[in-house]
Amino acid sequence: MSAVTTQPIGRHTRRREQTRAKLISAARTLFARQGVDNTRINEITDEADVGFGSFYNHFDSKDAIVGAVLEETVAAHGAAIDAMTQGIEDPAEVVSVAHRYFVNLARSDPDWGWLLVRLDVSHDVALAALGPFAKRDLSRGIKAGRFRVADERLALLASGGAMLAVMRGVLDGRLRRNADVLHADGVLRLLGLSAADAAEVAGRPLPKAISPAAPPG
Amino acid sequence: MSAVTTQPIGRHTRRREQTRAKLISAARTLFARQGVDNTRINEITDEADVGFGSFYNHFDSKDAIVGAVLEETVAAHGAAIDAMTQGIEDPAEVVSVAHRYFVNLARSDPDWGWLLVRLDVSHDVALAALGPFAKRDLSRGIKAGRFRVADERLALLASGGAMLAVMRGVLDGRLRRNADVLHADGVLRLLGLSAADAAEVAGRPLPKAISPAAPPG
Repeated sequence: MSAVTTQPIGRHTRRREQTRAKLISAARTLFARQGVDNTRINEITDEADVGFGSFYNHFDSKDAIVGAVLEETVAAHGAAIDAMTQGIEDPAEVVSVAHRYFVNLARSDPDWGWLLVRLDVSHDVALAALGPFAKRDLSRGIKAGRFRVADERLALLASGGAMLAVMRGVLDGRLRRNADVLHADGVLRLLGLSAADAAEVAGRPLPKAISPAAPPG
Repeated sequence: MSAVTTQPIGRHTRRREQTRAKLISAARTLFARQGVDNTRINEITDEADVGFGSFYNHFDSKDAIVGAVLEETVAAHGAAIDAMTQGIEDPAEVVSVAHRYFVNLARSDPDWGWLLVRLDVSHDVALAALGPFAKRDLSRGIKAGRFRVADERLALLASGGAMLAVMRGVLDGRLRRNADVLHADGVLRLLGLSAADAAEVAGRPLPKAISPAAPPG
């Protein structure tokens, strides 16, 4: 949206956006209640109280609406992490906090966790929505001489893939309580910190959330 | 199959196994030719020349047969890596070779690579089929004092998740030629090697395949 465009938004556009928002909200509710696999498109349109056909005016497939649900919530989590870490000087600690946040989220909000880790879309959505945050944090650490990586893109993919797998391990109930710390430790080593530095940074107390973010799940 | 069981396999059982093998082989062909998403179950049964209904005597869903195709081929790749690495003394190098093998496979056999990284089943299949190999290699490295990890299960998940994400990056054409070396370098650091050791081990020449494994894709 350009600031130059001053045309008022027409009733049609407004209604269209409302329908889309209703569908996303309905999908989020149903996915959390009964899982993505058990949710059919007609259940989403019923819950949203819109006609079945109008689903396809907004989304190509169930995967597409899963993507939209994730996109919204991932961005909100990214903003929450930004708020939490704004007082932290060490870029390595910022990365540590972000990874620990998501690993812990798999425990505190498993519905959302499953949404993120289970689907094919998750890789692309995670990359699109979290990528910019992760890229910025990594670049800061490299500039500060804290991280040493030969290829930023590969380092982002590897650490993101590790995070999704560890989140899944938490969701499966296969990992210990301190999985967040141990995972952050591994990622920091992967990004070039010495074993001693990685363990020290990963073990620092988590910062408090600045403001209690509305649960975006 | 126990060696003690000497009962002859009945005609019914034999035919059942043949049908299952035909379905898996047909699915493998179609997945490679047109992708998993574009392959319908009736196309698999047509290609296998069996009745549509008999699919469900063997598999619950398309995902189930994707899992079966992957299981077969992942095990074959695991055996190929074992053969390649049997002369290598350093357990860190064995892990490096295994990771590089799969990253390179994403480039040399992208159909198989997509099969592995795209689907929800891939996580469970990769864990079930590759897990035992990976666990054994990790344990060797820990016993030899080469790796230092606080939690073996978490280290396996993190390094496996990193590998799948890097394979996907290769499939997307987003990574450089030497992605295998850079990825192995990161995994070795994650597993506790110093930066210098990790770079040295990851950069060693790949061993030749002992015998040209039949392409299991």
